Amino acid sequence: MYRTFIALTVAAALCQAQRPASSNIPVAEYPKIHDDLRVTFRLSAPLAQKVQMQPGGGDNGLGKGPFDMVKDEKGFWTVTIPSAQPGFHYYWLLVDGFQTNDPSSETFFGWNRETSGVEVPDKVDFYEPKTVPHGDVRARWYLSKTTGQWRRAYIYTPPDYDKNPGARYPVLYLQHGSGENERGWSTQGRVNFILDNLIAAKKAKPMIVVMENGMVGNKVFGDVVMNDLIPMIDDEYRTLKNREHRAIAGLSMGGGQALQIGLTHLDQFAYIGSFSGAIRDFDLKTSYGGVFADAAGFNKKVRLLWFGAGTSEERMHTAAQQAHETLDKGGIKNVFYECRFAHEWQTWRYDLLDFAPRLFR
Amino acid sequence: MYRTFIALTVAAALCQAQRPASSNIPVAEYPKIHDDLRVTFRLSAPLAQKVQMQPGGGDNGLGKGPFDMVKDEKGFWTVTIPSAQPGFHYYWLLVDGFQTNDPSSETFFGWNRETSGVEVPDKVDFYEPKTVPHGDVRARWYLSKTTGQWRRAYIYTPPDYDKNPGARYPVLYLQHGSGENERGWSTQGRVNFILDNLIAAKKAKPMIVVMENGMVGNKVFGDVVMNDLIPMIDDEYRTLKNREHRAIAGLSMGGGQALQIGLTHLDQFAYIGSFSGAIRDFDLKTSYGGVFADAAGFNKKVRLLWFGAGTSEERMHTAAQQAHETLDKGGIKNVFYECRFAHEWQTWRYDLLDFAPRLFR
Repeated sequence: MYRTFIALTVAAALCQAQRPASSNIPVAEYPKIHDDLRVTFRLSAPLAQKVQMQPGGGDNGLGKGPFDMVKDEKGFWTVTIPSAQPGFHYYWLLVDGFQTNDPSSETFFGWNRETSGVEVPDKVDFYEPKTVPHGDVRARWYLSKTTGQWRRAYIYTPPDYDKNPGARYPVLYLQHGSGENERGWSTQGRVNFILDNLIAAKKAKPMIVVMENGMVGNKVFGDVVMNDLIPMIDDEYRTLKNREHRAIAGLSMGGGQALQIGLTHLDQFAYIGSFSGAIRDFDLKTSYGGVFADAAGFNKKVRLLWFGAGTSEERMHTAAQQAHETLDKGGIKNVFYECRFAHEWQTWRYDLLDFAPRLFR
Repeated sequence: MYRTFIALTVAAALCQAQRPASSNIPVAEYPKIHDDLRVTFRLSAPLAQKVQMQPGGGDNGLGKGPFDMVKDEKGFWTVTIPSAQPGFHYYWLLVDGFQTNDPSSETFFGWNRETSGVEVPDKVDFYEPKTVPHGDVRARWYLSKTTGQWRRAYIYTPPDYDKNPGARYPVLYLQHGSGENERGWSTQGRVNFILDNLIAAKKAKPMIVVMENGMVGNKVFGDVVMNDLIPMIDDEYRTLKNREHRAIAGLSMGGGQALQIGLTHLDQFAYIGSFSGAIRDFDLKTSYGGVFADAAGFNKKVRLLWFGAGTSEERMHTAAQQAHETLDKGGIKNVFYECRFAHEWQTWRYDLLDFAPRLFR
């Protein structure tokens, strides 16, 4: 009995020492995550002369790369990289210079294509599935008058949506970044688990979250949101159809879009968030149609103007901080939030964790 | 004006002569489909010595392959293959022998990994989006007691589901094939458009369709369906919770699973379908626990036992036809349906088109 216990303990320890990333396809052993967050990548390419692992982007939490992989006698190429930052990181492989996905990874739409990604665990569980009531993430197709094409929205409905058919809910419009699409927030971002957990803990109000594809140019996207998407959502879902119950936010490019759409349609939105937003210098008199010129009027109308950035993403952090300070000087109420991560999804998960509880209060 | 008209007509003709496949990622021009259904593939790989396009599987409607691609001076490799069969086809590229996805294609889970696919248009529109009311395809996570893990079901809810909160609906459990997953029927199979269109035309009853991941072994999957999935669905969705309002079907491996689960749980299912099912010789006395031994009793209980296959998939067609004939001889009422396609999603879309209208009558 005691021996069994020791054996199990040792097995558990060995097992925990390195385990397949949760972003792998089923059965795939690699990428493997070590306890100290080193990550081992492996690829079978017996005919290749040179194979490298390339993290997606210069400030990616996997390090700078490319990392040379080493071939064994069976044709497997392997590399173990130094401890990575927690969170989701895009990457790809270079096989004799040809950029390819890792066949062991699920794919995630980023960098304007389907891309490999690795989920490095954090010591927090706010974006993990728990035994709490779960909402659905729905895919809904609709015909856009603006583009003349069928488009797909992803829609999170909160856990009690189906069980309270008389209830109506506020709506957060939530956008991905450049090169991503409407699936980003539910796969890379885990919006559903974050909200399930916040709602179960009564830290956030039950809300609908709508995610669309912003890669159509800012002008067209603004028209799609205002003329096609919001009317469709208000028609097809049990929403509260007024500005006090409508928020808009986004990350990076989507943060810029959220500010542009939200601040120029204050009759439609009372809550606005920019997560590592692609934002320019704010001019209190002229930016966004001069909406900041009357601070008292703005503060009376806007319930939340929120800026977030990671301290490891210098450019976006500086931009968000400057916007915050400029607005503070102009007497515009706003929130500035920072976490320690880079221009990646871990920052935006933390952003949502801070942002969502402030909505619809 | 007249000149403009001619120019536009010519442009339209040129434009129609070859157009990007609907399965491409946004903006990608290739794969291109020609009017005669030839398909042109293209890849940028300036450093490669040899590039080929490989259709997924021996009876794939793209032809047998591999097809050698030809390099131009800019490093683009191109091939135009002979007219393809309509429908969705898996494929990949071989870059100096290394199997890789086409970066221009969306990825689809098949062949046990994320795989490229090309949608070749047909002259039918039963699986295209139309201006009819649309249902949602929902992703729902739940904790499986059988496996101890979080699992994800995809759930189609019909167009009127949200608007008739007092209504309850029958449920079709619908499974993918080997190497695929719970996303297959909504991406490759277009289950939502097929049902939206059938329901709008009043050819099928409004129904919920539940899709799960069967790649866990048949025994485990049967336990997941009976002990975890059905109870969760009946608890979380407005279902009609009895055998007369519950169907099970699947394709290939999933067809075998549907027969196994359905025929051994006739207290739970009254409608059973096998689409190109992986089925063995039927023995009227012993198969599926002897369920066919009492033909009169079986016929009284089972409202539909349906077999489908494509005439271009010899093995599965023979198996389905033999099952049909054996059951006919034994006096077991059953339906045998055939279409002209191969062991591919086009067959299974047609199967669903015939099968769904027969349910819950």
